[in-house]
Amino acid sequence: MKTRSTRKKITKNKKNNKIIRVLAQGTFDLLHAGHVHYLREAKSHGNHLTVIVARDDSVKRVKNHPALFSERSRVHMVRALKHVDRAVLGGKGNRLDKVLEIHPDVIVLGYDQAVSVRKLANDLASRGLVCKIVRARAFSPHVYKSSKLKKVIHQKMST
Amino acid sequence: MKTRSTRKKITKNKKNNKIIRVLAQGTFDLLHAGHVHYLREAKSHGNHLTVIVARDDSVKRVKNHPALFSERSRVHMVRALKHVDRAVLGGKGNRLDKVLEIHPDVIVLGYDQAVSVRKLANDLASRGLVCKIVRARAFSPHVYKSSKLKKVIHQKMST
Repeated sequence: MKTRSTRKKITKNKKNNKIIRVLAQGTFDLLHAGHVHYLREAKSHGNHLTVIVARDDSVKRVKNHPALFSERSRVHMVRALKHVDRAVLGGKGNRLDKVLEIHPDVIVLGYDQAVSVRKLANDLASRGLVCKIVRARAFSPHVYKSSKLKKVIHQKMST
Repeated sequence: MKTRSTRKKITKNKKNNKIIRVLAQGTFDLLHAGHVHYLREAKSHGNHLTVIVARDDSVKRVKNHPALFSERSRVHMVRALKHVDRAVLGGKGNRLDKVLEIHPDVIVLGYDQAVSVRKLANDLASRGLVCKIVRARAFSPHVYKSSKLKKVIHQKMST
């Protein structure tokens, strides 16, 4: 959540035409309204949104199953969304390398991303990046959660 | 395809800041790169793109199976795409009513839409709308065709 002082600072920086780089990240397999909501909220924290799209290898490792769409296709689709200024694939090595390369002012985590805000802030600070980290709000997670949607779609396809 | 004279006219109108309304239409279930390619090409024919998204009822009637995503969700996703200025659901009555309401300068048909350009032009002209009708080029249809993609996804989900 944004505090009142953060909101004031962002509004002031926006008025001064200062570029405020925001970073969002995710798998973005089977693009849905929850993703759009997350990216719109992320963009509202600044005025330039970069999105890191997870590579096929890391999706398989983290989620224990392959993505339905290839990394090339997923990054292409995220790039086509209105709120997105830039979409790139995640790094192949340490997951923080790409974040440091982008050097965001604000990182917006997805509501269900299993990352501790405090730990991420500490890890980044120890590598020289001090930035604001906020967590996005959930958007109808009973419907728009990729794993749930996939189950519903699989059922529909099987009938 | 655009002829040389059409291209010249569009470039001239764009330079004169004249609004050239383009219309595209489709189901847009399970959004993929082929859809983005179609809408980008459609937008290149003018400078304001409206997209008609097929209603659930008509998807069921035309394709003999229900859409995976609801009409509300599909129109929401199309609206979130960069090239799209406006996305609306199709009409409930005669399929031409919505087209006449939008009154486009150019209609861009999908490469695989089973509509005859000549018949559509005649039908619209008989109701007072004379506009250019072009057909979009296919974009890797061996991969990015909704029905094929759905089969691949279903297979992946079943393993």
